[in-house]
Amino acid sequence: MDNFRFHIPTEIIFGKGTHLEVGKEVKKYADKILLVRLAKESLERIGVYSDIIKSLEENGISYIELDGIVPNPRLSKVREGVEICKQNNIKFILAVGGGSVVDTSKAIAAGSCIDGDYWDIVEGKTPFVDSLKIGTIITIPATGTEMNTSTVITRDEDSLKRGFNLAHPTFSILNPELAKTLPKRRIAQSVVDMLAHAMERYFTNTEAVDLTDRMLEGVMKTIVRLGPKFYHDGYDYQTVSQVMYAATVAHNFSLCVGRVNDFASHQIGHELSGEYDLPHGESLSIIFPSWLKYVRNHDSSRIAQFFVNVFGIENNFLDADETIDRGITALEAFYQGLGMPVRISQTNIKNCDIAKLAKQATNNGAITRGNFVTLNTEDIYKIYQGAL
Amino acid sequence: MDNFRFHIPTEIIFGKGTHLEVGKEVKKYADKILLVRLAKESLERIGVYSDIIKSLEENGISYIELDGIVPNPRLSKVREGVEICKQNNIKFILAVGGGSVVDTSKAIAAGSCIDGDYWDIVEGKTPFVDSLKIGTIITIPATGTEMNTSTVITRDEDSLKRGFNLAHPTFSILNPELAKTLPKRRIAQSVVDMLAHAMERYFTNTEAVDLTDRMLEGVMKTIVRLGPKFYHDGYDYQTVSQVMYAATVAHNFSLCVGRVNDFASHQIGHELSGEYDLPHGESLSIIFPSWLKYVRNHDSSRIAQFFVNVFGIENNFLDADETIDRGITALEAFYQGLGMPVRISQTNIKNCDIAKLAKQATNNGAITRGNFVTLNTEDIYKIYQGAL
Repeated sequence: MDNFRFHIPTEIIFGKGTHLEVGKEVKKYADKILLVRLAKESLERIGVYSDIIKSLEENGISYIELDGIVPNPRLSKVREGVEICKQNNIKFILAVGGGSVVDTSKAIAAGSCIDGDYWDIVEGKTPFVDSLKIGTIITIPATGTEMNTSTVITRDEDSLKRGFNLAHPTFSILNPELAKTLPKRRIAQSVVDMLAHAMERYFTNTEAVDLTDRMLEGVMKTIVRLGPKFYHDGYDYQTVSQVMYAATVAHNFSLCVGRVNDFASHQIGHELSGEYDLPHGESLSIIFPSWLKYVRNHDSSRIAQFFVNVFGIENNFLDADETIDRGITALEAFYQGLGMPVRISQTNIKNCDIAKLAKQATNNGAITRGNFVTLNTEDIYKIYQGAL
Repeated sequence: MDNFRFHIPTEIIFGKGTHLEVGKEVKKYADKILLVRLAKESLERIGVYSDIIKSLEENGISYIELDGIVPNPRLSKVREGVEICKQNNIKFILAVGGGSVVDTSKAIAAGSCIDGDYWDIVEGKTPFVDSLKIGTIITIPATGTEMNTSTVITRDEDSLKRGFNLAHPTFSILNPELAKTLPKRRIAQSVVDMLAHAMERYFTNTEAVDLTDRMLEGVMKTIVRLGPKFYHDGYDYQTVSQVMYAATVAHNFSLCVGRVNDFASHQIGHELSGEYDLPHGESLSIIFPSWLKYVRNHDSSRIAQFFVNVFGIENNFLDADETIDRGITALEAFYQGLGMPVRISQTNIKNCDIAKLAKQATNNGAITRGNFVTLNTEDIYKIYQGAL
């Protein structure tokens, strides 16, 4: 177990009807805000647009609205938000939506505190020092961005998708009822994503991490059991509430304390989804099985432990390899059971330029990816190849 | 799963050598502090007294020292600390020690912000509104007080032991190396205590709490495996680091979000340890088996699940009762394997006045205890009786 510092300042406000508290919560920090949100029609379909506006107005909070955020959210929208905040002296952002809306808000909040462009922070030209305060109302359980510092933005001109750690939201409102109208495919993508966040933590070389191993297994077992229930049976408050909070916990950094994360699969997937505008979750269901096949000999005990303890695969004590074979089959079946692709050929991507992606993932070979197994451009090429 | 609010502002600074950072951390908040600590000789035996003083002095921090805190810490010491803080206009308390030292510090921090007496807060005569800031350096993994609001103080004159929720510490430094010289009996008491904190969360009637069930099981499995290893094999950094953080997580309220706690066993134990000055951990190893026997028919599925998933008891699918029988035997064996008593007769207590304790636990019948099963004076009398 490594030394660590751990601190989550975000206040979680969880449960039925909690979105109605938004005005009261925002009022603690600001009277004038930027409201970054899903399209008005989407929020009306969910049934919360007028509730949220009413709650803000009742608390005397004025707002400027910003929408039009797309999946794999774009830098151009961040720039637009920064401009509004600077021109109107706005110090608080309320994000209402999913990961794309919240990540855009985090980037706007950081970009509003520097003179230059947000991308300068990503490229290390300008240090990240300060941020406007952010509150969130989550409409989809998935990315965990509501309780962490992680932010992923894609640059419009070259589709370069890059993550960065910015500020924690000050508060996040999670009302499972808001996931009532979620389309099945979005549910599936989200389940893949939240499971992947825990998997990226689980595959580590750090020794003596039994405590976080067991807790991660607990979170993953819950996702593996209740995620498909949400997908197949549709909305049920008790199911969705657990899936929603599992998504938050899987990526709030509480389960990777004292251990090194991997996160190669995320980065390898980011290139695929940035370049071909593939949903993040689908890039992960494609990459993770291929990554596991590629790294399987690195620490077969840990990989077997994952499949036995999370997927309930019967352990073959004499042959870890055979356990892993059955495990990978089970993982692919899990993804496919959610209607998710496990190969690039199962998507709309034609003539996938995996050589370009592999170079991009490593900045033309300048950096390596992954901590569980260090991967160079050639390794990553082979992982894409295994996923074709 | 119930609605909840969740927020832990405490920053955890964990690992080897971290106590050396104390001066730098304190300096962010104050130049003058009250240093509430274990006896100087105890800290010298651990080997950190001069390190801590040096770190404070190098950062220009002046300090007034307060020691003499006993297990089941007393109100008189709280009053002494409040007097010092008020007279010297001290706004920050550094607590160096275990649960008793930190709880005393929390009570001093709250008591320093009111005109009356700390006990007025406990009795509801004065509302708890504000607190001085607190930093901690933990010398024993046990109570979890370093990352929560819980505080337990005993009134000198009548041994009345009462808990209250005050402020979170601002930061807590956890260096497992400081547990190097811990006596075996203290290790055992601590292991019982941290397991009990998770058990109090586990036994709930709240439905749809699979996520926190699985995470609690993960924490408890780790305690059940590594706690005895620490006790029997002695100090090993990797073992102790996990036990230490498990203690923190078991009681930082992150694993009881959206579910109702029980905590009857703690309260029933408090009367025993308050009245007869029995160590907190030993009151729990005595009370928990008797409590489980008394409430076993309330929700045999959950109790069987606990023993199967935490203690690895083989499930008898046809007869939960038989599973529970073997489970209670295993729990008692676990405690006894740590040299802990499981009956009052195994302690130095003579002529235990269980009628008095049962009345005291319920304020002469005015309140009931427990959420899993509600207990009145008579129920609690029978639980003491079963523990004789």
